[in-house]
Amino acid sequence: MTDSNTVQSRLSALGITLPPLPAKGGNYVPFKIVGNMLYLSGVVSLDANGFITGTAGVDSDVEKGYAAARACALTQLAVIQSALGSLDRVAEVVSVNGYVNAAPNFPDAPAIINGASDLFVEVLGEAGRHVRAAIGLGALPRNALVEVQMTVRIKEA
Amino acid sequence: MTDSNTVQSRLSALGITLPPLPAKGGNYVPFKIVGNMLYLSGVVSLDANGFITGTAGVDSDVEKGYAAARACALTQLAVIQSALGSLDRVAEVVSVNGYVNAAPNFPDAPAIINGASDLFVEVLGEAGRHVRAAIGLGALPRNALVEVQMTVRIKEA
Amino acid sequence: MTDSNTVQSRLSALGITLPPLPAKGGNYVPFKIVGNMLYLSGVVSLDANGFITGTAGVDSDVEKGYAAARACALTQLAVIQSALGSLDRVAEVVSVNGYVNAAPNFPDAPAIINGASDLFVEVLGEAGRHVRAAIGLGALPRNALVEVQMTVRIKEA
Repeated sequence: MTDSNTVQSRLSALGITLPPLPAKGGNYVPFKIVGNMLYLSGVVSLDANGFITGTAGVDSDVEKGYAAARACALTQLAVIQSALGSLDRVAEVVSVNGYVNAAPNFPDAPAIINGASDLFVEVLGEAGRHVRAAIGLGALPRNALVEVQMTVRIKEA
Repeated sequence: MTDSNTVQSRLSALGITLPPLPAKGGNYVPFKIVGNMLYLSGVVSLDANGFITGTAGVDSDVEKGYAAARACALTQLAVIQSALGSLDRVAEVVSVNGYVNAAPNFPDAPAIINGASDLFVEVLGEAGRHVRAAIGLGALPRNALVEVQMTVRIKEA
Repeated sequence: MTDSNTVQSRLSALGITLPPLPAKGGNYVPFKIVGNMLYLSGVVSLDANGFITGTAGVDSDVEKGYAAARACALTQLAVIQSALGSLDRVAEVVSVNGYVNAAPNFPDAPAIINGASDLFVEVLGEAGRHVRAAIGLGALPRNALVEVQMTVRIKEA
């Protein structure tokens, strides 16, 4: 089967259905393509039940944060697919900036953002590996628990 | 009139005069050009009366924050003009990272950063549309209410 | 001596020995090269005694923060050297994003991040000058006092 290597078949094998595109939250666009780089707006954590809110170290923790970061990554994959037509056009994930709504001195933002990083590698293999910064701060949009901003390199046509 | 489409004439029509360039705040440069990309340092909110300070959700709000973000955007336009000689050389705003000095769990950073996003679209039209992340945090330089960091694509010569 | 202009000889003249590469903190890579750009993961402040922790404005200050930012910059130079084989392949530092673990309304993140900016200029000269954003927030990985994320332009072969 020629499509056995495609990202879509890997998503199917993993039992993953991509979520809907995020609603607009301001006067900006979800993605821009400049040369072979795809720039993506930050997306906040949400799933079929709505926004995943909370503050790590207060009313949330690493486990919930990991799931929230994974949800952000799935939304970004949906945006990437809409931008490129197919996830097979991803050459590599270049960078991920992960923001965690966290109590002062919460030390485990990296363990939370792994929820996004792990998903990219699970779905895209080596092409999913990226540089990253994971930081904790006090006030994400809509009280979201996690926000993920990223860039992707696009395969040459 | 050939200049009826220029950014300067649009600024004039909008009654906007660009502010002075920001004072240096550390050992860095206001912009760098790499190929067709213009990278800009973060600028904090200030106007003719000095720094626009405050904390959204404590002693400030969305309306003041929106004005502060707009002030940041005007300062960035002044930096872009100084970097490129003319705002007509802007091909597009690529990305905007907006930082809001905010109380814990303040949910409306996007509504504040719209003050910058709206200004870019107002002045540059479609070329002003960009990807974005808007986050709230606790400690901006000089107690500024907003900081805006961005990148721009430059028109080919 | 032909190597009198090399970065290594400047490091030696300054009495600087680069620190070890940072330990992995999550499912990501320390650097990626895309065309002539080198993207680097954020690194947190650590020295031979371990992580440099603390909160500026609570149990730390500008002087300790400056030293922590300088430590981040040294670690990034070690990563850049491992990525490129030699620091002489650095065409220029393009951007630095500096994150400071800070008390609410701590105003001096720029004075702290100067510890990184000054080091880059000290070691790389004009090529070390960069655009920058310096922000204070509540929760860095492992309670680090400072984190530095950056990009570098690589000399053409």
